[in-house]
Amino acid sequence: MGQNNELREDAKRIISRSIQDMLPDSAVEHALVGVDLPGSIYVAAFGKAAWQMANAAARILGKRIRRGVVVTKYAHARGEIPGFQILEAGHPVPDENSVRGAEQIIELMKEAGEQDSIVLLVSGGGSALLEKPEEGLTLDDIQQVTEQLLQCGAAIQEINVIRKRLSAVKGGKLAMMCRKARIYQVVLSDIIDDNLEMIASGPACADTSTYEDVRRIKEKYNLRFSEKVEAALQRETPKQIDHVESVITGSVRELCRSAARNAGELGYEPYILTASLDCEAREAGEFMASIARSIGKVGQAGFVKPCAIIAGGETVVNLTGSGKGGRNQELALSAARGIDGMEDVVVFSVGSDGTDGPTDAAGGMVDGCTMARLRQAGMDYEKIMKDNDSYHALKQVDGLIVTGATGTNVNDVAVILCR
Amino acid sequence: MGQNNELREDAKRIISRSIQDMLPDSAVEHALVGVDLPGSIYVAAFGKAAWQMANAAARILGKRIRRGVVVTKYAHARGEIPGFQILEAGHPVPDENSVRGAEQIIELMKEAGEQDSIVLLVSGGGSALLEKPEEGLTLDDIQQVTEQLLQCGAAIQEINVIRKRLSAVKGGKLAMMCRKARIYQVVLSDIIDDNLEMIASGPACADTSTYEDVRRIKEKYNLRFSEKVEAALQRETPKQIDHVESVITGSVRELCRSAARNAGELGYEPYILTASLDCEAREAGEFMASIARSIGKVGQAGFVKPCAIIAGGETVVNLTGSGKGGRNQELALSAARGIDGMEDVVVFSVGSDGTDGPTDAAGGMVDGCTMARLRQAGMDYEKIMKDNDSYHALKQVDGLIVTGATGTNVNDVAVILCR
Repeated sequence: MGQNNELREDAKRIISRSIQDMLPDSAVEHALVGVDLPGSIYVAAFGKAAWQMANAAARILGKRIRRGVVVTKYAHARGEIPGFQILEAGHPVPDENSVRGAEQIIELMKEAGEQDSIVLLVSGGGSALLEKPEEGLTLDDIQQVTEQLLQCGAAIQEINVIRKRLSAVKGGKLAMMCRKARIYQVVLSDIIDDNLEMIASGPACADTSTYEDVRRIKEKYNLRFSEKVEAALQRETPKQIDHVESVITGSVRELCRSAARNAGELGYEPYILTASLDCEAREAGEFMASIARSIGKVGQAGFVKPCAIIAGGETVVNLTGSGKGGRNQELALSAARGIDGMEDVVVFSVGSDGTDGPTDAAGGMVDGCTMARLRQAGMDYEKIMKDNDSYHALKQVDGLIVTGATGTNVNDVAVILCR
Repeated sequence: MGQNNELREDAKRIISRSIQDMLPDSAVEHALVGVDLPGSIYVAAFGKAAWQMANAAARILGKRIRRGVVVTKYAHARGEIPGFQILEAGHPVPDENSVRGAEQIIELMKEAGEQDSIVLLVSGGGSALLEKPEEGLTLDDIQQVTEQLLQCGAAIQEINVIRKRLSAVKGGKLAMMCRKARIYQVVLSDIIDDNLEMIASGPACADTSTYEDVRRIKEKYNLRFSEKVEAALQRETPKQIDHVESVITGSVRELCRSAARNAGELGYEPYILTASLDCEAREAGEFMASIARSIGKVGQAGFVKPCAIIAGGETVVNLTGSGKGGRNQELALSAARGIDGMEDVVVFSVGSDGTDGPTDAAGGMVDGCTMARLRQAGMDYEKIMKDNDSYHALKQVDGLIVTGATGTNVNDVAVILCR
């Protein structure tokens, strides 16, 4: 247990230092300093890291900012920013405040004159936090279509093809609200391959999908939509956007490197397995546990102690129950069984934004005592996993990582720490 | 494509050399040479590697062998062995020949006198290849109970607790058929943690489970059995076996090391991730693909080309369709999507016994062209995966690894080869 406590303390250090390294302040600074931004500057920030990005921009651009709007998730704003209007809205499901936020930002963009500059500070989560239904549609219409697509098993790429057409701000449409001013976009990436079209649903990025894709998806899943939805689907999205310049900063790759550097400073030999983990959370947890079991046991081509094995990305959870949890908590709890009884290992997984699923935890941490503590607490591991109830299980055994909203959002990192 | 062909050729070399290294001949030799085996020697070999092990024993012990019996899988015997009776039987489902094989081996064991020695050569697959129902039961009874357990989602450990009691040879009962002669057991392990009780259902190993475990399992899954099955379940299994000496040889760890050595000789820097992979085959494939995508792209803590990333173990397949395949083929095909378009990588997974699932292939191999070739062939990847039909898909795109029965059985190895 003493060994485990030291490992846990090291894990916490690695988590807090790595998240600190990923705060967008210096990235925003690099992106804005020395860039030619003529006229008055209008700043629109949206996403989970919007407040932090806007705050950095305000520090750098100061009084040159004519008007600023921040739209972030509830409990993610950290105070006032001079010159900025700050709104909080729904995530992962957009709500009326998401529409209000979109309207404020559209107003701001229309206010900018020909000689002015618009700075968009975009981060993950923006897809839900900023929403305005296309003419004739309501939030409910969008929600219903989304549920229909999820139920028929459509892929996220397919869902996005449809959703961009139901929204008045996604798929480049936000940028088209203002064709006078120059738009400069700073994007904090939470998408594995940094695809601009995917981050926050690409509000300032031309849409490469066509109505032909819509037709194909409808046919594939045998979908039927109402007349007004069909009308929106048929309206073509922007195919060319010339007045936007984009800079992508931050990435899960950098998060992995930061975790490696911070683990190295604590004496662990770091290995980054991947920065594009995308399989099922619970299977990733089992895979990580199987790696943990072989550390120091497979000869010179294997990992040796002390080491930190790092995998970044975004896993998925297949819901089979109605418990509370998130992909990071599920990954960690899933690793617990495979490392049961081991004395020299901790496995954790954490979301850099500080909010894992609909919980107040950022992720989960387990060690070789976790299973025994669950048993002592009378908890049935298999039932917990079936219910996707990792939050309550981890809470019971001191396994939650709680950071609060961090101010950044560059996806997740899972780590095996062994000594 | 040229690059891929070279990678594929290297992969084939690594596969054939590593399997060659795992042939049990030298292991059996080491285990038998210099060991005190008094009197006449009776040799009983069963499992997928039985023929190869018996052949090695015959070479070493020669005319000292009074009688020998080999029971192996269909198409796994490779000719006559002097002094040996050779039988082939059903796997993974036992058949009448499994019972005939068990009866021959029991007869052999009863023939051995007080001054004689019995050598058991045990390898994986023995659980199905050697079977004799307990008094009053038939093969059908065992089959029905097994299916009942599989359907209610019982774990393999739980299934084994039950099955040992329905069998007259599992769970130490084979060893108890002869309490006069000394029994010397050489076990080729295909089980991740080399647990003697698990390999071939531990025919010469005391059973640690009790009727209390049976009661618990029945309650957990709300199971009801016929009167004759219930009678068999209540008969206690051997709890202490003193006349058996065991040597375990071979393991998936050695298979991983051999793959690492052979990859190293071809110029690839080898890394063994784990020798105890046990998650879902398709998720393991996705995890391996995500590792492949990050090679050379995540800085100095990441893997660099040329390299071989190795994971040994035994994955599981959750059947959702009725196609043809095996866990190695499913792992490989599942990795294909994640490496689509990459020009410098091959992923393969292979069973050291040469038979992956109920197919004539040992495993599968994919590269960055596999998805394109599937599309060209008009095959729907998602449908194939849903149908668990990896065999037919891989066959179409030159993705099957075919070795025939190899003569060994030390589980599976999956490898990313990148240059």
